[in-house]
Formats: sequence, structure tokens, C-alpha cells
Amino acid sequence: MGNKDALADKMKVKLDKSDFGEWYNQVVEVAGLCDKRYPIKGMNVWTPYGWKIMRSIDTEIRSEMDRTGHDEVCFPLLIPKTEFQKEADHIKGFDAEVYWVTHGGLNELDVPMLLRPTSETAMYPMFNLWIRSHADLPLKTFQIVNTFRYETKMTRAFIRVREIHFFEAHTCHATFEDAEAQIREDVEIMQRLSKALCIPVMYTKRPDWDKFAGADYTVGIDCLMPSGRTLQLGSAHQYRENFSKAYDIKYEAEDGEHRNVHQTTYGMSERLLGAIIGIHGDDRGVVLPPGLAPFQIVLIPILAGKDKQMILNEAEKVREELESFGLRVKMDDRDIRPGSKFYDWEIKGVPVRLELGPKDIEKESVMSVRRDNGEKMPIPREELLRGVRGLLDRISSDMISRAQKVLLDNIREGASPEDAAETFGITRLGWCGSEDCGHQVEDRGDVSILGTLYEVDGAVVREDGKNPACCVCGKPDGQWIYVSRTH
Amino acid sequence: MGNKDALADKMKVKLDKSDFGEWYNQVVEVAGLCDKRYPIKGMNVWTPYGWKIMRSIDTEIRSEMDRTGHDEVCFPLLIPKTEFQKEADHIKGFDAEVYWVTHGGLNELDVPMLLRPTSETAMYPMFNLWIRSHADLPLKTFQIVNTFRYETKMTRAFIRVREIHFFEAHTCHATFEDAEAQIREDVEIMQRLSKALCIPVMYTKRPDWDKFAGADYTVGIDCLMPSGRTLQLGSAHQYRENFSKAYDIKYEAEDGEHRNVHQTTYGMSERLLGAIIGIHGDDRGVVLPPGLAPFQIVLIPILAGKDKQMILNEAEKVREELESFGLRVKMDDRDIRPGSKFYDWEIKGVPVRLELGPKDIEKESVMSVRRDNGEKMPIPREELLRGVRGLLDRISSDMISRAQKVLLDNIREGASPEDAAETFGITRLGWCGSEDCGHQVEDRGDVSILGTLYEVDGAVVREDGKNPACCVCGKPDGQWIYVSRTH
Repeated sequence: MGNKDALADKMKVKLDKSDFGEWYNQVVEVAGLCDKRYPIKGMNVWTPYGWKIMRSIDTEIRSEMDRTGHDEVCFPLLIPKTEFQKEADHIKGFDAEVYWVTHGGLNELDVPMLLRPTSETAMYPMFNLWIRSHADLPLKTFQIVNTFRYETKMTRAFIRVREIHFFEAHTCHATFEDAEAQIREDVEIMQRLSKALCIPVMYTKRPDWDKFAGADYTVGIDCLMPSGRTLQLGSAHQYRENFSKAYDIKYEAEDGEHRNVHQTTYGMSERLLGAIIGIHGDDRGVVLPPGLAPFQIVLIPILAGKDKQMILNEAEKVREELESFGLRVKMDDRDIRPGSKFYDWEIKGVPVRLELGPKDIEKESVMSVRRDNGEKMPIPREELLRGVRGLLDRISSDMISRAQKVLLDNIREGASPEDAAETFGITRLGWCGSEDCGHQVEDRGDVSILGTLYEVDGAVVREDGKNPACCVCGKPDGQWIYVSRTH
Repeated sequence: MGNKDALADKMKVKLDKSDFGEWYNQVVEVAGLCDKRYPIKGMNVWTPYGWKIMRSIDTEIRSEMDRTGHDEVCFPLLIPKTEFQKEADHIKGFDAEVYWVTHGGLNELDVPMLLRPTSETAMYPMFNLWIRSHADLPLKTFQIVNTFRYETKMTRAFIRVREIHFFEAHTCHATFEDAEAQIREDVEIMQRLSKALCIPVMYTKRPDWDKFAGADYTVGIDCLMPSGRTLQLGSAHQYRENFSKAYDIKYEAEDGEHRNVHQTTYGMSERLLGAIIGIHGDDRGVVLPPGLAPFQIVLIPILAGKDKQMILNEAEKVREELESFGLRVKMDDRDIRPGSKFYDWEIKGVPVRLELGPKDIEKESVMSVRRDNGEKMPIPREELLRGVRGLLDRISSDMISRAQKVLLDNIREGASPEDAAETFGITRLGWCGSEDCGHQVEDRGDVSILGTLYEVDGAVVREDGKNPACCVCGKPDGQWIYVSRTH
């Protein structure tokens, strides 16, 4: 909102979240998160407000990476076809969805190059050069880059796009056990991010036929969207020696032997933003978690009465005070009516609105309004900082609690695959573990199997001890699988 | 240096800056700034240390953009051929050096797409949609992204690469005068960056035949490298209405008329890092400006004598004290001899080394060593913070002064184009302004014309009032042009 017009006046649609798909498409646009009119399908423009939020998310991720000793790198975008072809399963998984660069200037290239869909095949030829001895391990790296997939399904902003803002961590370890510990660290990182994002997630070990191309196993990280479908937000992969054999990544162990490293990866994307929009937004617009909002507070001087300059001065003092304590404040002193301002910043999801008018100044207080639940409460002027901080904390924890409740309320137990069909949310079913019965579940329930629960301390979704019978073949002493329709 | 080995022991080359080209290639590698062994020529891997420095430079740029009211955006990498072809001169300039994506998965694309070499043709179709009225102006945006050029000349890390870490600002204005003011703001931004980077630059208006493809005129920003050649670090372009006509970017003025916007762009790249390496490095490695160094201070406990634990404890206190004031400190307590540590951090260019041994503790001081000039000086323990800060400031200003002197000492006046031939540095010559004489200067001097001086407050390179005769045709009352060989 660089100019004086109110968003309110420009907006021609009425948001209605009861039609989630349509609501989502509209809200990303009116809140100024991205522009979908770029002339290539599924490649959207990050507009300033959306990009600010995404960069806040990246900052959270970087701080977690730093805390856990990962080094940031940046690998080239282009990968020669010859390197890409070294791991057979990996190619099979990506062959149909990569973009090919075939010409440089007016020349046809000798070796075609692809735009990275993910960076295993860019990084591992270099890991081969970087790793010599056990002293080089663990190697823990990550990068935040854009990746490309020639998506044929229907695209949706932040959720299914062809140019993806992507986080990927790649690690190498001396032993399988070290690599397993890395997967647990990945999940613990997600537990912390989950709090900052106010997005509860569940962790499942994907069925073998749905693991990442080239992986030994995959842990999927999913959230539940208001569409009733789950959205995969990220995944951690145990590669064992699958790639290190293909790319000949070896280290000299202390006993002098040369062994292949064990590898893991951990990926997340701009879907994190999609989940925030989808889960927390409402008919007034998006609702941003206080930890990530570009502005945590919008301050609106109510210029009624005689002494407008005095009100502006007082508002300026409030802004300075809050900013001096590191809070991110937007003062909206545009010359439009307050109602339009309220409306604009609600669309953009600013967690707290502060209003300051003649009456508030008289009462030596500031009126606060919560974006998430509309609650109004005066904060005494002299306790402003403490009051605002407390409010932001309560908003965060309420946002998480509400979303957790929705997730838990929508996990139901089913007795047959058909119980999962047309169901809003997640169904858990007994499963004998056979691929045949798994496919029957997916076909008859018209769902995807997320997997069996991956045990995590403090996880939202936990399991009791029953060993259920298979919902397809009836074999006893099976395990629970979680199934849902997916985005 | 994630492991215990000293860089010193791994290094097989002796750095010798008297052979600049070879020295430069070696130093970027041994200092861990990038890895050039990636299997595509001119596309290098940003390794952790180099990437940290580049991200520091980006942070400086972002803070300048923020200060001057530019919004950060992020546009797609791919541009459809159809959009690319709208501005004829622009295409002519880039046609031979773009990479083409022709296939998605197994399908040939209906419309080939190119990897952005710069983003005019990606952004301007959207600016067409974004700008409606004078209230939308000025539109000031920037992005920091990678761009791609199919470079046929010899590549060199950070200086001539095929995947370029790039900054580009794009602005739209109601009038030509507003756009001119933007160019002046761009130059003022560079003046400030120049201080942070410790790189003095000169500003010239490029000759007409060397302006950016599609521009009305181009201001080049150049520094002088130890090769005796200049390096273009950035440029600002006045587009007038050239692009806004091709992309039909119009606004409704207050008088109700629809007019084309006036546009400018401002670009810089990873060459900023190349310049720092080249200008300040020496036979011991790189020398980083204190404002940008990932570590400003390396702290080395000298574990001699009996009470090693006491020394470590004292060093830890020093580290905590300096970090608590926002200084970036690396404590090197590896179990190798101090000499190897000194050597390692000299290669990496850490501005200040602090040594703390039994004698220093006895004298209640810490020994400081400047990376830029080797000066040793004890700092009283109780004045440590003030002492270190003062040292960092002096290092910055000395680095700038020395580089300014080199630049000014190497601008010489010539009487004929031949005077510029084989000359180290920059020659200024009289010029009548004709393209014919300009080309003769370039051919006979085997140099490029940087241009005529662009006036900037506080610029390092200034001009006296003479109006020289043309060094080719002898016509009187001409202007000075600056010429040099270029990287």
C-alpha cells in the first residue's frame, strides 16, 4: 500500500472461506502475497508483502540451521544431464518433470542441462571431492534456492507451483546410526518451526512405494488444511548409501578403510506459507503468526476532535517506544477513514491493531484489537510494552491451540478403506503392512496413505498401543496407517 | 574449517600477487570462497565462507534499499520468448547470450523460455498491470536473484561467470526529472556502499555505443584492479520511455492524460566481492573489510605454561564480552600450533587477530594484530571493547585510503590514444565527442572508453575545468574521456 487508496475500495470480491479453494485463490491476491498474472502458468511473482513473510520464514529456518551446525551453501541451478543420470531410481522419479536447457545463445549445447528439481545431482559430485576422511564428517549443509518442476497438475499459489522457493539440507555421515540421528534432529527442528509458524504437523513414515526417488525411507511432514485434505510441508529422507555409491562419496575411516558415507536430506518449501494462509485465514483475510508478521502491530491514530496534531504526536511516541524494544510497528496515518484502515490491515493479517484517539488519551490507555479473534481490550498507557508483548504471546499460543484442536478432532478411526472415502481429514486404519493391501486402501478409499506414525517427543498426534487387524485382509496384529486426500 | 586440520597443511601453493591472474584464481580457492570444480564452466559453487561474505554484502544493499524506499520483490526466472522480444534493442543486446529452455519433461514447449539475463522483460509486463495512476508512482522495486549469461569469454570467479548473483533495482516515475533524480540516488547509494566495501569507484557516463541495450544513457561504476584494468562493478541506466512504450506502461496523470512512465534500473553483482578480493588481498590471502567480514575478530588462546584452563576461561570471557556488543568473534581453540592458526585466518582475511597467552594475562592486556598491515599492539584488558572497535574503524579507513591513493595515482593524462596503450590504470584523453574519434581512441589505444565523468558529490575522482582538444582530430574545447583496459 504505497499510495493513499484503501485496499478496501479496490477489492471487488467478498471473501468466503466456506468455499476454500476459491477463498484461497482470492486471499493470496487481495492480501498482496503474490501476483498470479505472470505469463507462465505456475510461476508467480512474489510481491513485497508476501516476500517479506517468506523471508521471515527463511530467517527462522536459517537460525535453526545455525543452531544445529549446518553451513549454508549455494550450488548452481543447472545440472549437466550426465551428472543427473547417475542414480537410476532418482532419474525415474524426476525424468518427466524437469525443464531442459538445450541452447546457449545461438548454439545447441553439447550436453543438455536441466534446472534443478532438487539438488542431489548437483551437490554429490562435489561432495565426492570435499570428503576425504572421517574428520570431514559429519558434513551438514543447506541452501535456500528456487527449484523447478514441470508440474502438469492444476497449480495453486505457494502450494503447487513450477518455480518453488525451496529449502534443502544435505548431510553426510560416517555411519547409518549418525544418519538416523540426523533424521531425528530434522524432526526436532520442525517441532520448533511448527511453533513459530503456528502450524501443527504430524510425522509419518511414508509407505515404501511413495518414498522419495532414491531414498531408503521418507518421513513426511503433513498438516491438515481447511479443505479436509492434508498438505505435505516437508520431508526428511534417509538415503543410506544409495547416492554415495552412485557418486562414489567415500571417506577414510580411522581404521584406514574407505567406506561410503550415509546421507540424509531434509526439504521444505513455500508451502509453509501456504499452510499459514490456509489454516489461519478467515473471511476478513489472512491471519499472520506474530513471530513472522512483517508488521506485528498496526497503529491507527483516530484523528477526531480538535487536537489532531497532539494525537499524531502521541501515536508517534507509542511507535517509537514499541520499535525501540524490537517490535515491528506500522503507523497508518493515511488520510482515509479509520474503518478502511482497519479493513486493509485485517486483510493483510497484522496480529494486533492499536487505536489511539482522544478518548484513549484521556483515559491514558491504548485500545488493542486482536486480529485472530477480534477481541478488544484497552491497555493502560504505562503498561503498553508489557501489554502488547503479552497479547502477541497469547495470540501465538491460541493460534497453535486452535489449529491443534482442528487437527486432532479430524483424525478418525475407520474399519474399512471405504470409511476413509469422502471423509474430511485423516482416517486411521489397521494395516498388515503388505503393498497389496496398501494399494487397496488407496484405491477403495480414494485416498493416499501418509504412512505409519514416526515417533517424536512432544508430537501433537500420538498413538495408543493397540495392534489393529488389517482393514483389507483382516490379518491381526498389524499397525495403524494414516490416510487422507492430499493437496 | 569444520575439522581439525590446518588449512596451512592442506595448501600446496604459495600465493604471489605479483602474478595477479594466477594469484586471484588461487586465493578464492584456498580462502574457501568458492569451488570452481563444478562440472559446468563458469558456474561455481558458493562455499560457506564465500557465501557468508556475499550475504553480508546483500545485507548492506538491502539496508540501503530500505532506507531509500525500495520494495523487495522476486520475479520468476523464466521469461517467455514472446515477452522477451518486445523491445528491439534489448533483444539485440542479449540474443547471443541467453540460455533457452525448450523442453518440459518429455514435451517440447510451445513457447521457448529463456533464463533471465536481467529482468526487464520479466517485470515490465507486470508493471503494465500494476501501474494505473500517478498515485502508484514512483514504483521503486528491487530483487536479489541469480541471472544467467552464456559467456563465451574466459570465465573468472565472481568477475566473469555464467550464473551471476545479481542485484537489480527497477523504478518507474511520472517524469524524466524524477527518473534523473533516481539515477542520482543510485549513485549516492553506491557512495555509501563504497565505504562499507572499502572500494573506491569512479562514475562515468558511458559512450553512446556502449550503453545498456535499450537505455537512453548508462552511468558505469568502475574500480581499478591490481591487474591495471578497470572492473565494472555496477551501472545505473536511464531508460526514458524506451521500455514503457514497448510494454505499454502508462499512468493517468492528475490532468487525466495517460502518459508513459519514465524508467531507470540499477544493477550490481558478485563482482563487488571480486573487487574486495582483488584490491585488498595480499600474499597471505584475502583481507576483508571489517564491516563485511563474517568474523571481525579471531581470538587465539596461546596455551603455553601451566594453567591452560585458566587461559581458555579468560579467552571465553573475552569472546563473550565482545559478542555481547555485537562484534563477530571466532574463537579458535583447535589443538594445533598457534602459527598454523595465524596462517589459516590470515588466508581468510579476518581483520583483527587477538592473542591471549600467559604473558598477556600477567600484563592484563590482549595482543592485537591487524590483518591489513601486520601491526601488533597490546590492548589493555579493561579497555578491550573500545580498543577493538577503534582498531576496526582504523582498519576500514586505512583500507579505503590506500585504495583511493592507488586509484588516483593511476589516472594519467595522455595526449594521444597511443599514450593509453599498455598503460597500467586509467588514462584521460581529450575528446571531441564524435563516435569516429571515440572508436579510433579504442582501436589505437587498445582500450575501452569508460566515458565522461558523471558528477557526484564527494566523488574520489574529480575534474578540473580545462576543455581539452580532441586527442584524435585536434578539435578544441572537447571534454575528458577516461579510458582503460577492462576485465
